[in-house]
Amino acid sequence: MTGRHPDAPVIGLDLGGTKIAAALVGAGGAVLARYTRPTPATRGAGAVLDALAEAVRAVRAPGTAAVGVAAAGVIDPVSGTVTSATDTIRGWAGTRLAAGLATRTGTPVACDNDVRAAATTELARLGDDGTLIYAAVGTGVGGAVAAGGRMLHGAAGIAGHLGHLPSPEADGLPCTCGATGHLEAIAAGPAITAHYARLGGDGADRLQTVAERAARGDRHATAAITLGARATGRALGGLANALGPHRVVVTGGVLGIGAPYRDALDEAFAAELMPPLRSLRLAAPHGGADAAVLGAAALTRTLPLHRPHPTGAPS
Amino acid sequence: MTGRHPDAPVIGLDLGGTKIAAALVGAGGAVLARYTRPTPATRGAGAVLDALAEAVRAVRAPGTAAVGVAAAGVIDPVSGTVTSATDTIRGWAGTRLAAGLATRTGTPVACDNDVRAAATTELARLGDDGTLIYAAVGTGVGGAVAAGGRMLHGAAGIAGHLGHLPSPEADGLPCTCGATGHLEAIAAGPAITAHYARLGGDGADRLQTVAERAARGDRHATAAITLGARATGRALGGLANALGPHRVVVTGGVLGIGAPYRDALDEAFAAELMPPLRSLRLAAPHGGADAAVLGAAALTRTLPLHRPHPTGAPS
Repeated sequence: MTGRHPDAPVIGLDLGGTKIAAALVGAGGAVLARYTRPTPATRGAGAVLDALAEAVRAVRAPGTAAVGVAAAGVIDPVSGTVTSATDTIRGWAGTRLAAGLATRTGTPVACDNDVRAAATTELARLGDDGTLIYAAVGTGVGGAVAAGGRMLHGAAGIAGHLGHLPSPEADGLPCTCGATGHLEAIAAGPAITAHYARLGGDGADRLQTVAERAARGDRHATAAITLGARATGRALGGLANALGPHRVVVTGGVLGIGAPYRDALDEAFAAELMPPLRSLRLAAPHGGADAAVLGAAALTRTLPLHRPHPTGAPS
Repeated sequence: MTGRHPDAPVIGLDLGGTKIAAALVGAGGAVLARYTRPTPATRGAGAVLDALAEAVRAVRAPGTAAVGVAAAGVIDPVSGTVTSATDTIRGWAGTRLAAGLATRTGTPVACDNDVRAAATTELARLGDDGTLIYAAVGTGVGGAVAAGGRMLHGAAGIAGHLGHLPSPEADGLPCTCGATGHLEAIAAGPAITAHYARLGGDGADRLQTVAERAARGDRHATAAITLGARATGRALGGLANALGPHRVVVTGGVLGIGAPYRDALDEAFAAELMPPLRSLRLAAPHGGADAAVLGAAALTRTLPLHRPHPTGAPS
């Protein structure tokens, strides 16, 4: 067990369905090293833990005090376990994330939901009584909700699963959670790509391809993209009516596909709002590209740290 | 200005779209007198304030210290004003509720959203960090949300407007708020009655009539009732996924129409939940029939009191 200097560097890991990003974070939040690699999502939880450990080794420096992991799925920060997860990462539900990574790296680990970690920095800007909706639209549709100045974890740590609101645009479509008709089933990146194929679009296996075709005038591509945007905008507008947030942030890979997506998103959101909220607009996150890894690193300061297993055997 | 004894009786008024209920509440929450009358909703805000004043006179006793009003619409307890409202009560938006009633009765008035007032008693039972969804399905679909042990008011006091979540079952239907496709447009009592007529049901102008016909085997009546129930169950299940509540309460006049409604509601709610929430069930409110007026009376102890206007002129 090592002592810890308050300025000792920590590592932030952002684990998504397609990509792992790592940063070594020094005093004052300075990013001292960065690393990214694909997530071996189809190879199971053990392979993902190995990949996270590799990312730690790639950025670590002498004196690194702890690792914070912002991870996909429902995470219980107290037990360090993945309470439940969709099938985006095979076998992810039940994974002892903190213990497994601490043992692989010999370093204490804290963990929480990826989006909640990133949203914490937004909440700090809203003052003592802020209510925040934070949506991340990427491989899945995740999010975080803070109310009255506090980040919600909720029963079973589930608060923030915005992708599992019913969506008129997703009616009848199977969702990754096992239900049907949820927002994620029409609005996540893979869902937009799948809907393009259902409309008759040919041979696109990535959202970026769909976006490029939309830009060249492919009406099926445009329809799939704007439908996903409209579904997200409506769900967030309805949730805003229910919660009265002071700020609604939207981020994630799908936001990067261009103006037609963003225009449809903003329009659908505005159309949903009750009159007292009509001045509310969807906002981009503060903090830029490093927000996720910085939020992950910050978890080492606010959440329980899980120590390496004394026998050194990977769990 | 009168001094106030802590055991002095207060009056709780529950103003709904169809009915005003009043209670004189004494020490320890004992109800000393009750009164109900129809809401003159079509006759405008002045007539509704007059009706509220009449209800106060009907139950008041010597020494009555204050009046708490739990009212329809978006209420700002600080200004005592109706921030916004649907057209359920004509001209209700903008009404200076607290000042108007204080002047008419010569008694200090506190006010808040009707459902939020009733939900406050539920929240007190959940402990310090409770998250609560409280839905009221009646003339409209309202609600309250509490998170981390605190009742949410939200921007513009709007938190809890659960009827303005997008609903697949309401797709394309106009909502009282001006948007389309909101839960209230298919799940409120009048919306179920209207949907029965759209399906071909004949000459029913009240939900109770639709319920009676369903009980006699009218398939259009059954379809309209179960669709409203399913819409509410799905919306609440999705919201539960987003917030992770410890308790979800459903109440309101529509709940009284019988088992087929309740069965469809429970089934739709359960089908929507993510795996970690599968043990969550919809609950009935504690406190029985007096919960609304008791909650209204309690507002006089937690919210700002608005004094009668010194000139005595009704506003």
